[in-house]
Amino acid sequence: MIVALDVGGTSMKGAIMDRALDRTATVRRPTPRGEAAVAAVVDFVADLFTQAGGAEAIGVAVPGIVDDETGVAVHSENIGWHDAPFRDLIEKRTGVPVAVGHDVRAGGTAELRLGAARGTRNSLVIPIGTGIAAAMVIDGHLCVGNGFAGEIGHMSVGADEPCVCGGTGCLEAVASGPAIARRYARRTGHETTADAVAARVAEGEPDAVAIWAETVGWLGTALAAATVIAAPEVIVIGGGLSRAGDLLLAPLTEDIYERLTFQRRPRLTTARFADEAGCVGAGLWALDLLESR
Amino acid sequence: MIVALDVGGTSMKGAIMDRALDRTATVRRPTPRGEAAVAAVVDFVADLFTQAGGAEAIGVAVPGIVDDETGVAVHSENIGWHDAPFRDLIEKRTGVPVAVGHDVRAGGTAELRLGAARGTRNSLVIPIGTGIAAAMVIDGHLCVGNGFAGEIGHMSVGADEPCVCGGTGCLEAVASGPAIARRYARRTGHETTADAVAARVAEGEPDAVAIWAETVGWLGTALAAATVIAAPEVIVIGGGLSRAGDLLLAPLTEDIYERLTFQRRPRLTTARFADEAGCVGAGLWALDLLESR
Repeated sequence: MIVALDVGGTSMKGAIMDRALDRTATVRRPTPRGEAAVAAVVDFVADLFTQAGGAEAIGVAVPGIVDDETGVAVHSENIGWHDAPFRDLIEKRTGVPVAVGHDVRAGGTAELRLGAARGTRNSLVIPIGTGIAAAMVIDGHLCVGNGFAGEIGHMSVGADEPCVCGGTGCLEAVASGPAIARRYARRTGHETTADAVAARVAEGEPDAVAIWAETVGWLGTALAAATVIAAPEVIVIGGGLSRAGDLLLAPLTEDIYERLTFQRRPRLTTARFADEAGCVGAGLWALDLLESR
Repeated sequence: MIVALDVGGTSMKGAIMDRALDRTATVRRPTPRGEAAVAAVVDFVADLFTQAGGAEAIGVAVPGIVDDETGVAVHSENIGWHDAPFRDLIEKRTGVPVAVGHDVRAGGTAELRLGAARGTRNSLVIPIGTGIAAAMVIDGHLCVGNGFAGEIGHMSVGADEPCVCGGTGCLEAVASGPAIARRYARRTGHETTADAVAARVAEGEPDAVAIWAETVGWLGTALAAATVIAAPEVIVIGGGLSRAGDLLLAPLTEDIYERLTFQRRPRLTTARFADEAGCVGAGLWALDLLESR
């Protein structure tokens, strides 16, 4: 058996899987804020390990800046930890091999090997949820950059909105799920969620339509810039916002294509694994550990 | 002996070198426009080959979209050719192995192996001359993307200026050498060159200072976006504009750092090989051919 954990900005998804990645259990817990989240992650993995009656290997996907080679979570804006040595902590606790890496690269691994980016050598897999980042594959190589590659959520799109990172106008500050809900609430006075905004867009509600069009423009700005640099054949949208489907993909594709000239036009699609991509990718990493030993 | 050719937007530089890359001859010719440039490149290489009394291998660096694997120059905005099969044409003419690739990736190869990016695993090498593009190395891998990777010159920086590519507001349309000269001329009524503008900046001439500050801002916008995605440890500025040295590097470094928050801050430096990088890189590719056979 294998234990896989995907740590998100608001909740953690844990799974017990066999070597075919078929699950025998899936468990969710909320993600605490700050350094308390470190112990919560290690405890959650240890509990799953016990529940599985032991496991052969463990894969853990975490957000922020992560050094996949040392298994250290260097920094997370949303959660608030610094230099958390997850691989060492979990190996000490369980005694089995542990792979720790970026949640978005875990999702990218899942989409690349089993999902929407399969068969391509150049792709961007971009979950849009509490945060926004990209798993970037160029010439078949999944880019890490010591943990700093693909942080498209903190590319400036020229918006006048402060970001949790300390910058202004970052993509994540205007186009993440919470940001879409916040912008809609500010415009209308009604608290809501990004899913609800999408539902109102489908109904043609003017405020929702206006917020959505702005969001598409900002996503288009950042994805066109990323396309100019990274030359993806396919852009895979994942995370909560991918539930909007063609309501997002159709105008976003049009927006990006309008910004490109001679560049290769990427195909846009939604993730196969939706918000399960991180857990599947963490499972694939755990399998990789077993194969390499 | 080796023949190396670097095809630029305005002139072609040819060199005859030994295996240590020491030159016995360097020759320049103007670059024609349109399909006539194809024959001009092949003739130039053949003449150098004859002048060398034969050569063991040939390296050719060309601008635009180039498929390094097939040796075909797919497209060049500035020159105007399409699907020129340079590798086949030159191998047929000379009978020796030929490597054809992107001029900017040739320059990147030179800086990475012998120059300003040596010892790093993540870098951007960006010549700023008639055109602007980047050789992008991530995790030690020189990104190709079927010829489309690193085309930072056609990233929109939000300027209100038409670009030769058909887009508007591309970095190249405002920050290339000719673009700087054109913007200065439009502001002052005086025709000049980017070098002359830089000289006037050093003297504190207000119009030149204003044009320079705008240019730095646009370069900073694009390089910060590229840094967010590609996470370079070092950004190497080459091409004609690198002759400005600290007049460019100091304000550009400050501008980029102001745009970054948690990201790794790249060191900015000028190219070791200046505008010779393409020729040196083409020579290294020719050597690679000899080593691989």
